[in-house]
Amino acid sequence: MLCLTEPTDARWIERALGDLDAVLVDHAHCEMKAASNALSLAARSAAFPGVVRALVALAEEELSHFRRVLDELDRRGIALGHPPVDPYAVDLRKAASKTFSERSGRSTTARAERWRAGGAAWLVERLLVGALIEARSCERFRLLADALRVRGEGELAAFYEELFACEARHFRLLVDLATEVAGDGDSVRARLGEISRSEGEIVRRLDGTAAIHG
Amino acid sequence: MLCLTEPTDARWIERALGDLDAVLVDHAHCEMKAASNALSLAARSAAFPGVVRALVALAEEELSHFRRVLDELDRRGIALGHPPVDPYAVDLRKAASKTFSERSGRSTTARAERWRAGGAAWLVERLLVGALIEARSCERFRLLADALRVRGEGELAAFYEELFACEARHFRLLVDLATEVAGDGDSVRARLGEISRSEGEIVRRLDGTAAIHG
Repeated sequence: MLCLTEPTDARWIERALGDLDAVLVDHAHCEMKAASNALSLAARSAAFPGVVRALVALAEEELSHFRRVLDELDRRGIALGHPPVDPYAVDLRKAASKTFSERSGRSTTARAERWRAGGAAWLVERLLVGALIEARSCERFRLLADALRVRGEGELAAFYEELFACEARHFRLLVDLATEVAGDGDSVRARLGEISRSEGEIVRRLDGTAAIHG
Repeated sequence: MLCLTEPTDARWIERALGDLDAVLVDHAHCEMKAASNALSLAARSAAFPGVVRALVALAEEELSHFRRVLDELDRRGIALGHPPVDPYAVDLRKAASKTFSERSGRSTTARAERWRAGGAAWLVERLLVGALIEARSCERFRLLADALRVRGEGELAAFYEELFACEARHFRLLVDLATEVAGDGDSVRARLGEISRSEGEIVRRLDGTAAIHG
């Protein structure tokens, strides 16, 4: 699906349905993190006014989704709680930093240093990492929607169907923004393929816990 | 005004009107930073569901203001450009960290450590720092609105009048949220007074450049 190299293991959906409360809590935090990440990238995109506006609009959409997941938690009497550790996103960013560093010969030890030295190239990298996270959410939301419909949870299934379409749109948007910043579609597609292979390895390594990217 | 201990020096408004382009660029970045900050605090407020929702709504409002300042920049043909350095916010956070550390006996060297060790107390601190920043913006927006009206820039004056009212509301909201987290209004008022004195010293030390908090 989209550009994913590794499909989600069938055991994931069983575990997710087995602890739907945990999935919903994790999902709420994912929306919040997506909004924060979009703003963080917007603040680094001042040289590309169209990218700034698109990322701010994306952040606003993620926040509206966050509020809707929060409503679902309230309806079910589940507390939001602190953000669960998300090894998927951490590992994916690390993998992208490592490959970026190897290819560009630029040290990636310090966050500020990466932005200073990497400039637009590092922005492209972060946009593509974001795109991959959206692609994986998209795949998982489809699995959730289908399984919830079978289980008779039509309302939540419809919610995940709607979000499935949003995540697909976000994936495309972030790839388009990366292309705008890079000014070269071929290099972006090649780099997306590389990050996607790293993403596939991370997903294979994770054991399919009840989390959106578990 | 509000809880400020030091009024803005009269030279600030002269300098601000002398380089309105720089003020508008700085203002755009301030709105973006306010949104990011609200989300960062929301992510740390999971134990207080009402606080999370209020901070997310605040972030959404700041983003809508950001887009409106961006529209104003577009109308004037000004590029957003990279965020100017903001010594005011940096110094204010440092001052609050220092006082917090002295009072609580907790090391404030590392950001993650402050959150881990400080917990709700550090959240209260950050909410009050945010409240002070809103209070200062409020005071400056009033000065801008009045001066722009005298200069015949009625439309921009009306915009700053509207934002003046928003910043006053945000100040009160953040103090209320700090009180909710602390569970004790007296300690919050006392601490707000202390941070306000630090804020006054910082404003006195800054030389009134053409920036919202310059």
